This record gives sequence, structure tokens and C-alpha cells, in this order.
Amino acid sequence: MAYLDHAATTPMLPEAVAALTGALGSVGNPSSLHAAGRRARRAVEEARERLAAALGARPSEVLFTGGGTESDNLAVKGIFWARRDADPRRTVVLASAVEHHAVLDAVDWLRDREGATVELLPVDASGTVAPSTLADALERHGDAVALVTVMWANNEVGTVQPIAELAAIARAAGVPFHSDAVQAVGQVPVDFTASGVDALTLTGHKVGGPLGVGALLLGRDVPCVPLMHGGGQERDVRSGTLDTPAIVAFAVAVETVVKAQESYAERVSGLRDSLVSRLVAEVPDAVLNGSRCDRLPGNAHFSFPGCEGDALLMLLDARGIECSTGSACSAGVAQPSHVLVAMGSGIERARGSLRFSLGHTSTEADVDALVAEIAGVVERARRAGAVRKA
Amino acid sequence: MAYLDHAATTPMLPEAVAALTGALGSVGNPSSLHAAGRRARRAVEEARERLAAALGARPSEVLFTGGGTESDNLAVKGIFWARRDADPRRTVVLASAVEHHAVLDAVDWLRDREGATVELLPVDASGTVAPSTLADALERHGDAVALVTVMWANNEVGTVQPIAELAAIARAAGVPFHSDAVQAVGQVPVDFTASGVDALTLTGHKVGGPLGVGALLLGRDVPCVPLMHGGGQERDVRSGTLDTPAIVAFAVAVETVVKAQESYAERVSGLRDSLVSRLVAEVPDAVLNGSRCDRLPGNAHFSFPGCEGDALLMLLDARGIECSTGSACSAGVAQPSHVLVAMGSGIERARGSLRFSLGHTSTEADVDALVAEIAGVVERARRAGAVRKA
Repeated sequence: MAYLDHAATTPMLPEAVAALTGALGSVGNPSSLHAAGRRARRAVEEARERLAAALGARPSEVLFTGGGTESDNLAVKGIFWARRDADPRRTVVLASAVEHHAVLDAVDWLRDREGATVELLPVDASGTVAPSTLADALERHGDAVALVTVMWANNEVGTVQPIAELAAIARAAGVPFHSDAVQAVGQVPVDFTASGVDALTLTGHKVGGPLGVGALLLGRDVPCVPLMHGGGQERDVRSGTLDTPAIVAFAVAVETVVKAQESYAERVSGLRDSLVSRLVAEVPDAVLNGSRCDRLPGNAHFSFPGCEGDALLMLLDARGIECSTGSACSAGVAQPSHVLVAMGSGIERARGSLRFSLGHTSTEADVDALVAEIAGVVERARRAGAVRKA
Repeated sequence: MAYLDHAATTPMLPEAVAALTGALGSVGNPSSLHAAGRRARRAVEEARERLAAALGARPSEVLFTGGGTESDNLAVKGIFWARRDADPRRTVVLASAVEHHAVLDAVDWLRDREGATVELLPVDASGTVAPSTLADALERHGDAVALVTVMWANNEVGTVQPIAELAAIARAAGVPFHSDAVQAVGQVPVDFTASGVDALTLTGHKVGGPLGVGALLLGRDVPCVPLMHGGGQERDVRSGTLDTPAIVAFAVAVETVVKAQESYAERVSGLRDSLVSRLVAEVPDAVLNGSRCDRLPGNAHFSFPGCEGDALLMLLDARGIECSTGSACSAGVAQPSHVLVAMGSGIERARGSLRFSLGHTSTEADVDALVAEIAGVVERARRAGAVRKA
């Protein structure tokens, strides 16, 4: 089997598995005052310190959550609420047009239920938000902007945004800046403080940690109304019993991938470049989407003219090659990708696309498997498409 | 060490540990369409069926979440929003005065931010909501009630509510009824359909499953606005990548504890009764709080006149006996328990209380350890209190 869907979820690192299984035998709620509780609390706080150090944040800036979707929803809704509470004129949310649905749908909800005005920042053909685009929008809306949210790197086409530049522009305007860095951590350098970002989402299962755990890095001075109320854990911004084993394993995974990031990126982007050139040699009219230079190392995203992405996916799957038509989170939904459409791709081209995403377990054998099958599969999908149209 | 804090969190069952660790090696996002994704989806759906069967629910009524706090917040806020959307007059929330903070604080938030009118249903001295109390409140508020929320069993004093009676009254009034059953599942019989409840919260780590996973059982016809938006997983009511390993282990734990519930309750309530009578023999003026009959099998909750609960807790901890002053979720907060206050206990008595909670790993040796130390510890705490007052 060639697993080329690491952007959907990647296997756990052995270090993280060991940390998780090692912690399962301990009992103790980190909020309990007795020795078992204090042990659990120490494990959580040590994990917080490790994760913070790996990402250039202070431990007090790390809020553990249940995953990327929760972190995104908390940041977007929570900061919006807090900023509007402080000044009712602040009702505008600026979000890139290529955000993950966890941000886009949260923002839509604020529009539909909370009276927010949402402006989607357009991207260029590579999927990049130009800093001038953000600057213009901030100037146009003046004091009405509650927050800006632009992802660090796109989950479909892999384009890495000029986050530090964008964050600096927002900061100059006095507007909090959130970035969904779920796809970025471990793949490209991510330093919270150096980036100038006010809030940053990451999640366990995209970095070789467990599912069901994530974090929101949140500056100490960034106001945020909780999404979930209860015991008041995590600075009173996120309630819920802390998942000690998952948190410990998550921190180990983050530390491991951040430490290995440079060599990982070199190895995996080499594999990816090989995949791209060998695939294009097999299917000369395949079009690589996304940025050529500012791109996640493991991402290769193609449009195959005249094909249905779903047909390609199923044909490849039958041959033991696992990939995606876009985001796993909206898989099964027969809609053209909003990301490709925002990049100016036509509906047809958007529908005929596949994402191959490499990761820490990928080898040249995975590329070999894909290259051996892709031409035949594309040929077959084209014939099927032609028959359907006839 | 004598761990008498199972209500805060209980050790994982070996069956659940095996299920979790066994699933860690698999990769695949249940939303992915390829073989690995479909395998993960099958594992999730099989877990959903097992959990549903164990709790008398249909599989389509099970929504997996990140835990009890999330399930409570989703039910309370989501049903409130949906009911008020359908009829703007519905702004009243009826909640028992002894709810967990995950419900109480969610309800307070609806009052403060969404204009909800919150009525806390009083309880009697045992902590029970009388069915007539609910009936009266429903009649008084008429069509204005958005939802009713009453926990199945109290986390502090262990009182089990007459849920089926309460739910029947709400149903007759056409009002959705939510119950936080976090403490009840596996301890007392819980059958979703038979109970007549519309929404029910449960969580992994209180039933010997993993932390960071829970469920909301939600009737198919109960409207609920999502708390977190994104990929649209879980009936579009709860987005976020499904945590396959935790879900599989959670279902195994629920199935195991439900199957063993009767024998468990017999064994553990026997231990608990022994703890109660032996403790009272040592400290004759200790007062057992909560219901004598309708009580969780593992719960023993005492007030010790003239003592500070925190002092008792620390003195016992120093002797290897781990317990709680109330809810772990609000531990460290020096406030008298809202549960005891609602039961009519004075502030002083509320502050001098300890919860001992037994669970699946408890033995008579744990009781022995407590009984051997309690008189000396109470004596010492009393002297400290007397000195402070002097």
C-alpha cells in the first residue's frame, strides 16, 4: 500500500506511541489536589513547556484543546466575541478565501448568527494572500475589524502564506491575527513569537501525535471568550478535563518533528519533486497547482484535465494507492474545492484534481507505485468521463 | 496508596487499554474515501453500534465528542439556540441547582450573553429534584421553556435523580430534556430510549475508557445548533476529525461497564457501605451527605464538623489516601460547594466536606487504609481549625 494522504492524518511517531502508552497506566485528574493529581498536573505542565519551547511560545501561551477544529472555532469565535464586547463597532472578520472549513464555517456562523461582516481575502493563482490585499482591507474597514485569520499553509494545495508579513500588517493596525498552522508545524519553521501571530492553531494527528488533542497558542494579552464552559481549566478559556496521556504524547511529537524539520523537509521535498517530475513525465498535461516555491515539502496537488477526481481516487485506491481529492474533512461532498476556485481554477479543473501528500513514513517506493499506475488510471478515468458526456 | 477519587477519573480498564493501543498502529482519517479511511470509518461505526446497543440508543443517536464538558456545552447551548430559532419566545432554561459546572457555567453564559432566563430547580436535603418542582416550573413558564437539564447522578454527593419521571414531565410539556449522565453510566442502569431523555452526556474517562473522548446521545428529532463548525462530521452537529482509537476504546469501556453494572454495583456498594459504617464508628459526628437509597454505588460524601475539607484532604494525602473535597473540576477554588449549599447545608458544613469515591479497582484494603487514619486526621484538622479561630 502506498499511503499518500499524510495531510489528512499521518501515522503516529514511535516516540509519541511510547509516550502515550506509557502514560495510560497512570491515574489522576490534573485538577485533583492529591499526589496522583499533582503527578498528572506535572506531566501536563512539562508537556506545555516542551511544546512551547519547540514553537517559540511561552508555556502560559499554550492552551490544550481537543484538536484543530476546536482551536480554530475557539480562536475565531472567541476573539470575535471579546473584541466586539470591548467595542461594538468591531464586527468585521477578514479571512483568506482558502481557509480550512473549520475556520470558514466558523466565520460563516458568525455572519449568520452574530451579525458579523465577513470579507474573504482573495488569493492569487498560487493561493497566496498578498500583504497589500490585507493592508487594503484593514484600511477600508478601519476600526471595525474584530480579527484577521489566515492559515499558515494550505491543506489542499500546500501553499505557504507570508505569515510574518501579514501578521505585522495586522499588528500595525491593532487587530489580532489568528493563523491555522495545522499543516505547517513540523513541515516548515513555525515560531510563534517571531511570527508576530496572536493566536495559532495546531493539532496532534498532523504531526505524528495522537488524535483528539490540539492546542491554541494564544498571546497573554489577546482577549478570547470561551467556547466551552465548565471547570475553568486552561486559563478559564477552555474547560474540560485535561487529557494527560494525549497531551504528553502530543508534546513529544511536536518536539520531535520540530527538531527534525530541516532534514525532514529536505528529504520529503526531494521525494515530492521526484513525484512531480515523474508524474508529469507519465501524464504530460497534468497541471501542478499551488506555489512552486512557498510550498509544504510533502504536498503535490495536480489537476488532470478531462478526469473526475473521485474516479481517479477510486481507481488508484483499487491499486493500493491512497490519496485525496482535497480535504479529507469534506470528502464525500461532491463540490469543487473552494481553494481551487479561489485560485481562479475553473469548476471543471477543480473537480479533476488530486492531492498526494507525503510524510514521515514515505519512501521512493510510494512514488514508484504511483508512477507505475497513474498513466493507466488517468487514461481510464478520461474514457469514463468521455462516455458519460456522450 | 488508596485511590478514593474514582469520580474524578478512574483507571482505564485493561480491555480499553488493549483496544486503544491496538488501534494506534492503524492510520486513516474516517472521512477519507480510500481503503485506510474506510477501515477507520468501519471501526468508528462499529464502536458507535456497540455503544448505542449498550445504552439503549440507536447508532444514529450517538455523536462522538471530545468529552463531557463538550457534550454538556453542545447540548445546553445547541438545543437552546435551535429551540429559540424555531420560536423566539423560548428563552427559559430550567436546570437543577446541583448541576456540574459544565452545565451551570454554560447556562450562565446563555443568561449573560444570549438573554436566557435561567431558573435553577431547587433540590431537597438529599439533593433530589422533586418531579413536582419541575412540573411547577414548566407550568409557570409555559411555552417559554427552551430546555430542561437535570443530571442523572450528582458528581459530589452521588444522589441519583428520578430521571425517567422528570423526562416524562418535560416530554408531556413538549420541552427537550438533557441529562448529564457522566457519573451514572456503568454505575446505575442507563437506557437512553427507556428513560425518555432527549439528550444524554457521557464521557470516556469516568467509565474506564480514555480521556479526551465522550458522546452526546441526541434523539434524531432533537434540534441542536453546532458549537464547533468545520468538516461536518457527526450529523453536521459536531465537526472535527474523529479520534478512531479513542472512540474504539471508549465503546469497549462502555460495553464492559454496562455488562458488569449489576455485579459491580453490588460489590462496590458493599465496600462503600463498609466504608460508611466503619468511618462513622471512628468519627461519630461525621455526617453522610446525599440520598441514603438513590445513590451511586461508589459514593460516600461526608461533612466533618469543625474541619476544613482542604486540610483533611492534604492530611489524608500525606498518608497515601487520595480523595476530593468535591468536584476535581473546581478543585483549588476555595468556595463552598454549590451542591451542598443547594441541599441546605450551611457554608461551614459545606467547607468541611470530603468525597470518597470507589471504583473498579477498589478493595477493602482501601477502606482499611482510610479507616486507620481518619480519626487522627480529623482530630488534627480540628485542632488546626481551633487554633486558627483563636
